[in-house]
Amino acid sequence: MTINRRDFLKTAAVTTGGSVFAASGIAATSAAGKTPKVELKISLQEGKAPGASLNEQFDFMEQHGVVGFEPGGGNLQNRVKEIKDALSGRNIKVSAICAGFKGFILAENEAVRREFFDTMKVIIAAAGEIGSTGVIMVPAFNSQKPCKPHTQDTRNFLVEQLRTLGDYAVTHNTTVILEPLNRGEAFYLRQVADAASICRDANHHGVRCMGDFWHMTHEETSDKGAFLSAGEYLQHVHIASRKCRSMPGEDGEADNYIDGFRGLKMLGYDKYVSFECGLQSKDRAATLIAALKLLRDQWKAAKS
Amino acid sequence: MTINRRDFLKTAAVTTGGSVFAASGIAATSAAGKTPKVELKISLQEGKAPGASLNEQFDFMEQHGVVGFEPGGGNLQNRVKEIKDALSGRNIKVSAICAGFKGFILAENEAVRREFFDTMKVIIAAAGEIGSTGVIMVPAFNSQKPCKPHTQDTRNFLVEQLRTLGDYAVTHNTTVILEPLNRGEAFYLRQVADAASICRDANHHGVRCMGDFWHMTHEETSDKGAFLSAGEYLQHVHIASRKCRSMPGEDGEADNYIDGFRGLKMLGYDKYVSFECGLQSKDRAATLIAALKLLRDQWKAAKS
Repeated sequence: MTINRRDFLKTAAVTTGGSVFAASGIAATSAAGKTPKVELKISLQEGKAPGASLNEQFDFMEQHGVVGFEPGGGNLQNRVKEIKDALSGRNIKVSAICAGFKGFILAENEAVRREFFDTMKVIIAAAGEIGSTGVIMVPAFNSQKPCKPHTQDTRNFLVEQLRTLGDYAVTHNTTVILEPLNRGEAFYLRQVADAASICRDANHHGVRCMGDFWHMTHEETSDKGAFLSAGEYLQHVHIASRKCRSMPGEDGEADNYIDGFRGLKMLGYDKYVSFECGLQSKDRAATLIAALKLLRDQWKAAKS
Repeated sequence: MTINRRDFLKTAAVTTGGSVFAASGIAATSAAGKTPKVELKISLQEGKAPGASLNEQFDFMEQHGVVGFEPGGGNLQNRVKEIKDALSGRNIKVSAICAGFKGFILAENEAVRREFFDTMKVIIAAAGEIGSTGVIMVPAFNSQKPCKPHTQDTRNFLVEQLRTLGDYAVTHNTTVILEPLNRGEAFYLRQVADAASICRDANHHGVRCMGDFWHMTHEETSDKGAFLSAGEYLQHVHIASRKCRSMPGEDGEADNYIDGFRGLKMLGYDKYVSFECGLQSKDRAATLIAALKLLRDQWKAAKS
């Protein structure tokens, strides 16, 4: 695997540029067995911070040290100027783009696959314009049928299709990010190690993966093990409370992320940990401020 | 997941006994974040050591500090006395039992599933008599057809069937051990994290999993990540050279197990690392002695 990684880095070194591909640096760090000082870069999906407008949300985020913003992919192409303007002069960058595509890549029906590629390409191009780390995608939700059968042939097909999508992403200086979901939403891809293995098969610096603590709670036996398996391919992380998918901390003691944070520190993970969650409390601002403190305290407590 | 583990340990504490279930102790160790002194317990499959008879092989193994023996499951019920006699008074114990069953658990055809259960039960009973840590099984080889489709329903079916098998194994003071193989042999179960997730779903102390460095070379992006995901469920490990599945060391620099050994040390893994491999060299004894030294040197070098 070391050899694979070296080949990967060689390829990456020749063809990539821009911090969006810095994830490949993770491999070198972890391969060397070092645990460097890694900062926790927190991101919020749109609407998680209080505020009616983007500017009000960004003001709040800056005041509380949130450095990443994760918009949805829907209609993103018509929001590029709005987002650029709202971010201009701020200490906040776009993290990943959350889905927003139509169709799905593993559809039996070619027209449905074409719809996926057509809508993804529009989102990828917009993502590149606003400097996003990548566009999150799911190979197949349980509700999306007819879906190709879960076989080696389908896996090979997926890898080939991802390379094509990865080529397009790289020309726009961004990536596509595979997200494993829990079995209730998407049985096809449930575990971070499987997503990372697909990335390794694709061997394409525009094809990455992520982990979502909410889904991982249901599918992973070890948060640390899952993130170490993601390794150099880890491009994004989602976080939520672990019982009700609310703000971290709203589920009390269940909201322990320390083991996963250890894994991220061991990797030298330099991308974002982004809130994808609901809210139980009526006080968004106070709950979010408490969540930020909880994550920063647990990040400090995570000795790898 | 900590909560799951506590529940698991509670159950295990009530119902289990005997070192065969000591794996549950691993959870406590790793949960505490400690890295205790862990010894490398090496095991050999039958025929890996030079010697025409079991006694000749065991003499060689004892001379070189090999403490585990992994027989095949075929005809094991008729070899219980032979194996017990040959092991009597020696510092060698039976590790896992390598397969030997007929049929397969995910067969569409009920008669083929019954054949699997009937033959597994005979092997499990014999395994218990000789104090084995567990009987290795594969849910479905690629060649075994017709096989149930790779769906959530099949996964649920597998978990239910494993509980039944686990009950039988526990009454014989042993376990069943799920082995992930590379995609060329068994696409259904390829990754250690998936096998561990099946064990967690089964939530049965008689249902365990393993990792085989040979298959892991092809399917895992991180040996350490894979073993950390196996966690408390890890009951056995197979090892071979990483290019040709020969004796460790016969593939030169490719035969690096240090990252995986780090994971095993982090877990406090107290079961066996067992040779399942061929031989390129004409000198079995010298190649085996060199392999034992290589693994012991890499185990020492594995700082977690």
